[in-house]
Amino acid sequence: MYPHYKTKESLLFAISVQGHESALLATTSADRPSDSPRDRLAATVAAYVIWHARNQSLAKVVQHELRSLSPDHFKYIASIRRRTSEVFARIIQLGNEQEAFHTIDAEAATLAITSLGVDVSRWFPSHAYSDPEVLAERYVELALRMVGAVN
Amino acid sequence: MYPHYKTKESLLFAISVQGHESALLATTSADRPSDSPRDRLAATVAAYVIWHARNQSLAKVVQHELRSLSPDHFKYIASIRRRTSEVFARIIQLGNEQEAFHTIDAEAATLAITSLGVDVSRWFPSHAYSDPEVLAERYVELALRMVGAVN
Repeated sequence: MYPHYKTKESLLFAISVQGHESALLATTSADRPSDSPRDRLAATVAAYVIWHARNQSLAKVVQHELRSLSPDHFKYIASIRRRTSEVFARIIQLGNEQEAFHTIDAEAATLAITSLGVDVSRWFPSHAYSDPEVLAERYVELALRMVGAVN
Repeated sequence: MYPHYKTKESLLFAISVQGHESALLATTSADRPSDSPRDRLAATVAAYVIWHARNQSLAKVVQHELRSLSPDHFKYIASIRRRTSEVFARIIQLGNEQEAFHTIDAEAATLAITSLGVDVSRWFPSHAYSDPEVLAERYVELALRMVGAVN
């Protein structure tokens, strides 16, 4: 099936690069730096959640099998993941500086927003949520509350 | 190693029952029904997060390998999981009724709180968070914000 990959690890790495780059691109593409922090957080959280819902099978593999990668490959993937988290982290920081947000702990909020998105790949779809857009809308509301967004 | 289990599935089921019952017990034991909804949510979310951090290896297996269970065993485990989610759902509902909370969507808040706890088993510990109690404190703050808890 995959004649070009000599080992399972190299196949997993190739899939992981593709998956993580795709999630990063989906998130950064949704970001409009000229918008308000509130709108930017809403757009990027929605894109991240929708990516994990629409690509559930791929996302599940690339988010849950990282420990099967070689140390060098793990480091490479970790760097893509960090860039994705930093999209949220920077918007949250800016929102706090502009007093559009009032986080208690910006790092914890970034972790929680990222974690909620990733975990979609474990359970999606469920009985209650099978539409990526509806789920994204709910999670955006929750993310805005987590950062203490001013209405 | 496991002479009493005839198949991998029966071993996974036994571990899954143990893990899910342990998480449910940790959560229900932390709940003091005479406390305020705010204190009850804080105590149960903390217990759920701490359980997933302290039992990371077990939690990872029982939360991520459910689809390898037989349909009947899956149903049984799903019923324990539902009872755990219902602990949060009932407290959130009560909080809304008493106007201690102002959720936008109680079901989404329950899902997010449960999901954040479960996902701890994927990533814990991280560079930033290696103390279950510190993580629980941050996640309690975020959970209270998600449900619109009144200060």
